[in-house]
Amino acid sequence: MPLPVPTVPEGVDPAWLPDEAFRPLGTRRVLVRGSGPLVETVHGEVAAACARFGGRVERDASPEPYDLLLELTGDDGGEAFTCERRAGLTTVTATGAPGLLYGLFHVVRRGPAAFAEDHGLQCHRPGLALRMLDHWDNVAVHPVMGQVERGYAGGSLFWDDGRARGDLARIRAYARLLAACGINAVSVNNVNVHAVEARLLTDRIDEVAALADAFRPYGVRTHLSVTFAAPMVLGGLPTADPLDASVRAWWAAAAERVYAAVPDFGGFVVKADSEGQPGPFGYGRSHADGANALAAALAPHGGTVCWRAFVYDHRQDWRDRTTDRARAAHDQFAPLDGEFADNVLLQVKHGPMDFQVREPVSPVLGALPRTRLAVEVQATQEYTGQQRHVCWLGPMWSEALRFGHEGPAGPVVGQRASALVAVANTGDDPFWTGHPLAQANLYTVGRLGWQPDAEPAELLDEWLALTFPAAPRRLADGLRAVLSGSWRTYEKYTAPLGVGFMVQPGHHYGPNVDGYEYSPWGTYHFADRDGVGVDRSAATGTGYAAQYPEPWARVYESLDTCPDELLLFFHHVPYGHVLRDGRTVIQHLYDTRFEGVAEAAEAAEVWASLAPLVDGARHRRVAERYEEQLRGAREWCDQVNSYFLRKSGVPDERGRRIY
Amino acid sequence: MPLPVPTVPEGVDPAWLPDEAFRPLGTRRVLVRGSGPLVETVHGEVAAACARFGGRVERDASPEPYDLLLELTGDDGGEAFTCERRAGLTTVTATGAPGLLYGLFHVVRRGPAAFAEDHGLQCHRPGLALRMLDHWDNVAVHPVMGQVERGYAGGSLFWDDGRARGDLARIRAYARLLAACGINAVSVNNVNVHAVEARLLTDRIDEVAALADAFRPYGVRTHLSVTFAAPMVLGGLPTADPLDASVRAWWAAAAERVYAAVPDFGGFVVKADSEGQPGPFGYGRSHADGANALAAALAPHGGTVCWRAFVYDHRQDWRDRTTDRARAAHDQFAPLDGEFADNVLLQVKHGPMDFQVREPVSPVLGALPRTRLAVEVQATQEYTGQQRHVCWLGPMWSEALRFGHEGPAGPVVGQRASALVAVANTGDDPFWTGHPLAQANLYTVGRLGWQPDAEPAELLDEWLALTFPAAPRRLADGLRAVLSGSWRTYEKYTAPLGVGFMVQPGHHYGPNVDGYEYSPWGTYHFADRDGVGVDRSAATGTGYAAQYPEPWARVYESLDTCPDELLLFFHHVPYGHVLRDGRTVIQHLYDTRFEGVAEAAEAAEVWASLAPLVDGARHRRVAERYEEQLRGAREWCDQVNSYFLRKSGVPDERGRRIY
Repeated sequence: MPLPVPTVPEGVDPAWLPDEAFRPLGTRRVLVRGSGPLVETVHGEVAAACARFGGRVERDASPEPYDLLLELTGDDGGEAFTCERRAGLTTVTATGAPGLLYGLFHVVRRGPAAFAEDHGLQCHRPGLALRMLDHWDNVAVHPVMGQVERGYAGGSLFWDDGRARGDLARIRAYARLLAACGINAVSVNNVNVHAVEARLLTDRIDEVAALADAFRPYGVRTHLSVTFAAPMVLGGLPTADPLDASVRAWWAAAAERVYAAVPDFGGFVVKADSEGQPGPFGYGRSHADGANALAAALAPHGGTVCWRAFVYDHRQDWRDRTTDRARAAHDQFAPLDGEFADNVLLQVKHGPMDFQVREPVSPVLGALPRTRLAVEVQATQEYTGQQRHVCWLGPMWSEALRFGHEGPAGPVVGQRASALVAVANTGDDPFWTGHPLAQANLYTVGRLGWQPDAEPAELLDEWLALTFPAAPRRLADGLRAVLSGSWRTYEKYTAPLGVGFMVQPGHHYGPNVDGYEYSPWGTYHFADRDGVGVDRSAATGTGYAAQYPEPWARVYESLDTCPDELLLFFHHVPYGHVLRDGRTVIQHLYDTRFEGVAEAAEAAEVWASLAPLVDGARHRRVAERYEEQLRGAREWCDQVNSYFLRKSGVPDERGRRIY
Repeated sequence: MPLPVPTVPEGVDPAWLPDEAFRPLGTRRVLVRGSGPLVETVHGEVAAACARFGGRVERDASPEPYDLLLELTGDDGGEAFTCERRAGLTTVTATGAPGLLYGLFHVVRRGPAAFAEDHGLQCHRPGLALRMLDHWDNVAVHPVMGQVERGYAGGSLFWDDGRARGDLARIRAYARLLAACGINAVSVNNVNVHAVEARLLTDRIDEVAALADAFRPYGVRTHLSVTFAAPMVLGGLPTADPLDASVRAWWAAAAERVYAAVPDFGGFVVKADSEGQPGPFGYGRSHADGANALAAALAPHGGTVCWRAFVYDHRQDWRDRTTDRARAAHDQFAPLDGEFADNVLLQVKHGPMDFQVREPVSPVLGALPRTRLAVEVQATQEYTGQQRHVCWLGPMWSEALRFGHEGPAGPVVGQRASALVAVANTGDDPFWTGHPLAQANLYTVGRLGWQPDAEPAELLDEWLALTFPAAPRRLADGLRAVLSGSWRTYEKYTAPLGVGFMVQPGHHYGPNVDGYEYSPWGTYHFADRDGVGVDRSAATGTGYAAQYPEPWARVYESLDTCPDELLLFFHHVPYGHVLRDGRTVIQHLYDTRFEGVAEAAEAAEVWASLAPLVDGARHRRVAERYEEQLRGAREWCDQVNSYFLRKSGVPDERGRRIY
């Protein structure tokens, strides 16, 4: 029986799956072959599209000619599929049911082109096997962080004030959106696991199972964040020592119970010894010991441990310039290469700090050749405008994922990683992501997981074509203009030249140049009256640059070769230091602040001009957010400029107003 | 019937009323003459002391000679009393019952001296008629501010998570403590009146009445903070316009009901048009219109409106250097002189900003000769160490209250004001004030209200003698050493030369030099690479200095005459500006930071040396807080020094470590 297609609840935006996107498919004659639950999902999709647009679907055999064959030819569970078009017939085949589902969405994405010119056999397989969204959702409202930690899209899709929301219709629609962009896993609670959330692992596992049931028809596996202290907190044991037999037995039994409730459970996400969370250090054990203990419990069931490498000293003394937070993950984890179990993924943030608008790629990603890695990015815009500013992060993520692509060592991520994990930017907001245009980030992150070397501009075009299937040229051009450069615009009006932070502490929205300068968080810029930046060279600084393999260590080490956009991340330079374009650092700083504001204003005008072409609710929402973005951009510009004018005493060459 | 003396509950500190303080009285033969409830309170006090220490008390007539006569000779309700000692008989007389109560505590305070040498008739009368504590206590826990806004002494004495605590035994003991230091009024809820708190005025008035019953036997009248929007919020009216007849009728009826429940109700405290609270501006009315509307409702019952002058633009643009928060209260209120009803007290903070460790005296205090004024000080140490740092504020308050004492105009406050209002520093902490030594602030503020020109050192000695009645010389000397200079020590390691703020935004604890520099709150220091400070002169600055009468306007206007400790409040000067002691501003800044830390460390050592002389719990509590004070003092020192070294580039002459 074909599975009925989940529809978004009344008032909720269909995002990149509006009915209209299915017109090319829905007007065709389609044959679906194969069996199993996911084939029913595919069948349901095709049937719904054909019912709407006048096409026809047959199952397993067709009395008449057809335009599209969707065929499952095996049961290997794989995600790959092939596609060819010959003599007017488009054929998608897969040897695993998830592959057929992804093949279907491939056809939808291609639109009319899927039924146009013939082409030979193309093989599609995911670049990264695990493509996961980590929801930092709290079950109970956290007194500081609220229902969703770093959430900017309303409440949680899963939880509401201590209880499961029970709105499975919306979860099913969500699963479908995720599958259509390539996501195949979600973690349904915050990596900071508080008391209530801990119990999802045990007596509240039924609530997780209900979510898993809703995600399963679209090939999305459910994961849980767990606390390393679970054996004590939940099990009443006197220790959580990962080498203790009773602890290991507790985890094994806990996993057993989880799989009884959720047979395809994905595994655990763990933030250990990080920002106050418990971990193996408390027992004199290594992170490999810790991760492996949990991995052993999951292994019999096919589960994975995503073990975060976000371990650093968050009680650093700002007076101590020898400690460097950027070094921490490499210092901690590189020596452990080869010690992790096969079903452990070491989950590494793409940069060494914390999702700043510009960071170098983390050297950890190249440092553990015998360890499976997950690259963690942040779809939720904690430091990039909190979904009040347009900031399409596709180009930034792409740079990280393709880092080294043209170098001798090949792409760092492409060679080493087997997973892309994104912190989710979704919530119960009618537009899913608060800012309607932030949907593009979610779409892009999924597609980059499938194809890490994709051109981000092409993914943006895909998203545009799906989301606005009937868009006239002017709308598509306008949306492209508004989104494609938005990351660099955001970078221009916020912290300059890779130095990062300069945000309001705590909530991280808006500027505060010295906000973290004398804090224990290890995020400093060291601006004084003469210059600014962090010396991370090996020769005179913290030595962070030497954590990279060549040629990168050499490139970053030297002022002559370090890319300008990362200059202040790696070097402390005088304000008069001359950049490659001939401008001084201070003049560049002034210029780019003003440019960023001008670009944001220009984008807002483009958006305003699109009003007749976009539905009212969406246009208003975006227009409101542009107002705030412009206010915020000016605030960033003025504060950063004033701060550096006051400190450097160097006037703007062009005499613009600095307060 | 003598009223039984309320005793502090088990485990709660007796503060400045330990039993032992009553020994000199309790060993005497005492005659109490007069009638009325407060005479019963006096009788109860004497009876309890005599029962404990072997003395004797008679009522109205005595068959035998006696040592002390406490006599009420009238019923004018006054607080004055006379005292004389002649031929071995000490006589206290009063024409109002409150006077007799204050006379009794005068005798207790004098200790053995009250029964030593003869002296002629002394008249004691309060310098300020109203001596009130404003409790910023919330009934319901506020999501940001908690149970007590700016509270550092545990929970509220009155409220607990939405309900009245009902612990009237402790309130009775508290009333006794207050009476013994001269306080005669309390306001029992926060000036920021939220939804739950608003209802104290109407359907929850019985809870206020229960508190008033507990305060009354010690001559303390109960007041309420009310919201200006009450006619709308509680009365359902469409407006709160103070000139609207239905609004005025609503207030009159509300007051009627309040006095039915609390016949000696003191009146209302109002924060209007301030930091988001509603007020008369919303209706195009003046603050006099607003205050007078409420005053008219209270007048028939003898109640007072305390109308706060803390009105300023808290959404200021930091780019705008012409707006000056310091000017705001004078700008707003000086033109209204003569327009306020007789039963309005304009409640004015002692400085123009917000309870910083050093501010000039508010010019508002000299600007409304035809208006009754209340001077507001802050016993709760919001900006002065939050009861984790020792900071005895007696000398600061005394400076404000005696300001102009030796000048041609006479003391500003002494001539103009009729009330001293202190934001309370008390809570349900066993020591009442969190830091046991912060009790001295509460005691001092009460006594200064009674005698604004008292020598603060003498009040400190009073507090020491009462609180530690059996203290050996070494303990008294040690306590004096630890407390007497603590305000100047705190000033030394925090923000320099009157510039203020430089605190962490929000909670206001600990340093953050630029914390409020680019904020909307109007609190800036304008430090750049060349200099620091706010130009408030009339010639080149905001003109604030001209709000003072002569000679002060002239004194503050000129760099040559402006007192150094207020230099940066009134002037922006280069770091090389030379102070009266020959040091430059920057060197003074470095020196005083280091001195402040050294003085705090020295005080901690003195306290440590007192361990054998102080009870264990009290010594431990203070010692723990000294640890935090030292850490905090070093943090202040290092952050402020680093900030200014980075900005000025001027090294410390003495080569000390600046990070």
